[in-house]
Amino acid sequence: MTKILRDEDLADNALMRVAVDALETAFLARAGNRLVSPPRHHVSFPDRGDLVFTVGGMLGDKPLAGFRVYETFDGAEHSQIVAVWSADDARLKGIVLGERLGNLRTGAIGGLAVRHLSAPGARIVGIIGSGAQARTQLAAAAAVRKLDRARVYSRDENNRAAFASEMQHALGLEVEPVGSVSEAVYEADIVICATTSQKPVLHARDLKPGVHVNTVGPKTLQGYELGLDVADAAAVIATDSPEQTRAYASPFFLAGSGNEDRIADLANIIAGTAAGRGLPEDITLFCSVGLAGTEVVVASAILDRVGVSV
Amino acid sequence: MTKILRDEDLADNALMRVAVDALETAFLARAGNRLVSPPRHHVSFPDRGDLVFTVGGMLGDKPLAGFRVYETFDGAEHSQIVAVWSADDARLKGIVLGERLGNLRTGAIGGLAVRHLSAPGARIVGIIGSGAQARTQLAAAAAVRKLDRARVYSRDENNRAAFASEMQHALGLEVEPVGSVSEAVYEADIVICATTSQKPVLHARDLKPGVHVNTVGPKTLQGYELGLDVADAAAVIATDSPEQTRAYASPFFLAGSGNEDRIADLANIIAGTAAGRGLPEDITLFCSVGLAGTEVVVASAILDRVGVSV
Repeated sequence: MTKILRDEDLADNALMRVAVDALETAFLARAGNRLVSPPRHHVSFPDRGDLVFTVGGMLGDKPLAGFRVYETFDGAEHSQIVAVWSADDARLKGIVLGERLGNLRTGAIGGLAVRHLSAPGARIVGIIGSGAQARTQLAAAAAVRKLDRARVYSRDENNRAAFASEMQHALGLEVEPVGSVSEAVYEADIVICATTSQKPVLHARDLKPGVHVNTVGPKTLQGYELGLDVADAAAVIATDSPEQTRAYASPFFLAGSGNEDRIADLANIIAGTAAGRGLPEDITLFCSVGLAGTEVVVASAILDRVGVSV
Repeated sequence: MTKILRDEDLADNALMRVAVDALETAFLARAGNRLVSPPRHHVSFPDRGDLVFTVGGMLGDKPLAGFRVYETFDGAEHSQIVAVWSADDARLKGIVLGERLGNLRTGAIGGLAVRHLSAPGARIVGIIGSGAQARTQLAAAAAVRKLDRARVYSRDENNRAAFASEMQHALGLEVEPVGSVSEAVYEADIVICATTSQKPVLHARDLKPGVHVNTVGPKTLQGYELGLDVADAAAVIATDSPEQTRAYASPFFLAGSGNEDRIADLANIIAGTAAGRGLPEDITLFCSVGLAGTEVVVASAILDRVGVSV
């Protein structure tokens, strides 16, 4: 019987660690040219919208193949489908429905960057933003570092208070809402910038030496949440997909900044073929773009795990 | 909660009629340029196989969108997935897993041809072949005509006996295994040719006037199950997709026969813009190629029906 998982099956916090570990395998496969991630495939239904397919998989010992599909129709409720096959025996491993897998995947990409770029002793997180992405990024950081506390700033006082109490409860971690960006990040070893802001909200002067920064919000020249001086200050700049940063309709926010040629592929940092963090005081920056094809690898690991105690 | 159907949920014989009716709507949409059926999309996984997507849908009052996906990996077990959205409100109507929907769809295309091309009083069916396609074609004919009896021939005596007893039980219809093609078809008002033969097994001399013939087996110049003289004898030749007959790697079996320019689109016959059966003694021929995009329409109708008494 094909396993079908829904959002409510993906509530266990332990799954974030499963997702990060699965992505690490995927990124190593990418460094070895074994990650399959062809361009998206759009099919238009006139006057209605598109179906958009992201096919992906991983070659090697236990090859995987699958896809994610979502639609752009008008409606209140949207359902994604992710399906995974074992490509060595044609078995349909299962299907994951809903929104949570995508969030988990995006969070876990950030977690993988934190694992490989932040200081091993990182204990304090500063978060800017209080939406779904901010939640999964913090959960991912907590899955890879022994955190003591987090401080969150977002413009709406109610939102940041709700974020703090919810995440404190979910992660068993002290989470404090604060009134400014600088209060959120001045002591932070890890900074998560997860806003929808089209103008920079975080600047190099806010950051302490040795910090690692994840930017998951807007980052094209049309609008970006991170000051260009953060990139100037960073010893290492990485992304999960250099090719996707070059494929945006509007250019990547670092285009023309003098920093665009030193953007490393996180996969190569993980594989040890590109330099990661050097000195303790190095600032590192990760620009998350959502490497295509990785949903399938995360879904596979979760299908293996859910129903078994994690 | 998204509805998920599996093969065992599609066992009800009444679903064939549901499928034929749904396809009639789809074919009328096709005649009105409202059926969406773009070319297949293949993604290769090196040394393993492909994922193959057939996207499809229907525009109009209750627009539908969805896809079928199957794989070509090595393995004993294969699972297809068909998913359907309401394109007007983005609701995922459901997912159908397994093999039966595809069989039902192929059968129902044949049933639609029988409904629109065979004599209204057709009572006797002759079947050549005893596989899955032969079964669903007979079930489809029984869904659209009040049949009295069927006679089945296939080379293997055990197979034709098993077919006869199984289908007699399933359809409540006298089904008789016979020892030759001519015994199977000499009295038949409807002939179903559903073999894997690369050489013609059925000839014009075997057929009685007024018969309707469905060919669902091989039909390229490389190999075809039907004598070219059957096409010569036919007053009407139709197919579900003239464009698909022109897209085969090997040319369609009627290429160069002098009959290829009078192949009608079944959709236009149903819509009344192309001529169907004229005189009672006309022989009609339907060449089933499996119009892409129709799985989604059939799946939608079945998702609406299953769980509700039919």
